[in-house]
Amino acid sequence: MADYTIRRAQREDVGAIVHMLADDQLGVTRDDPADLEPYLHAFDQIDADPNQLLMVVASGDEPVGTLQLTIIPGLARRGALRGQIEAVRIHSDHRGSGLGADLVRWAIDESRRRGCTLVQLTSDTSRAEAHRFYERLGFAPSHTGFKLKL
Amino acid sequence: MADYTIRRAQREDVGAIVHMLADDQLGVTRDDPADLEPYLHAFDQIDADPNQLLMVVASGDEPVGTLQLTIIPGLARRGALRGQIEAVRIHSDHRGSGLGADLVRWAIDESRRRGCTLVQLTSDTSRAEAHRFYERLGFAPSHTGFKLKL
Repeated sequence: MADYTIRRAQREDVGAIVHMLADDQLGVTRDDPADLEPYLHAFDQIDADPNQLLMVVASGDEPVGTLQLTIIPGLARRGALRGQIEAVRIHSDHRGSGLGADLVRWAIDESRRRGCTLVQLTSDTSRAEAHRFYERLGFAPSHTGFKLKL
Repeated sequence: MADYTIRRAQREDVGAIVHMLADDQLGVTRDDPADLEPYLHAFDQIDADPNQLLMVVASGDEPVGTLQLTIIPGLARRGALRGQIEAVRIHSDHRGSGLGADLVRWAIDESRRRGCTLVQLTSDTSRAEAHRFYERLGFAPSHTGFKLKL
């Protein structure tokens, strides 16, 4: 990690982040960096919410990895906070370098710092390699993730 | 639903909600209504956050069902909002009456009203009956849900 820094995403990073979201087996049909307007609107909502942390790992100034961490308060488990990880992507030129693991470990550590007792995420059942990655990091595939498109 | 109302939870409902959380095959080891202090603290955090909706379905004044809906902004899927459902419980005396389906349908409708394009939830792999329930409501079991206890 000598040449990389993990930091909060800034508005100028949105284009690079959307490129990473779209450069993905599933994201390619769902995301398109040609029109950044809806993404910038979403960025402003995320950035204004203290329970949302949109992060990048940058090589120099250039984002080459991203994830979003959401801190969710709840009553269950004696009023536990949980950290939820979404939208994990590493630029295709930087995969296999351990960056993804470092970024997810950062999210786990930040969740702990904020008093969370649980970190959770879901991964599409087709992402077999991602599932092995999360299991190596200590996650248990204990749940089924359901989605309903509106 | 003639005798039931779906409404936001109030501080006075916390005891009844925690009883429902604890009266569950998994929750029984994780939740305990004997000391409400951590739950009341969590309630105040939830109640102060406009992206959190802790709901009850009440019979008269008495909560007999609950869920939490979290609205999560994100960059993925063209800056989509998603609704996330957690901690769904129906009091054991009121199960099989369709209350759970009505409550989840409320959360789906509220997600749509708030502009979400997706509703998501996870359910422990051991809850086979719950999985059939969510599939009947239109949810697809497309993801694996990973958890890491801190």
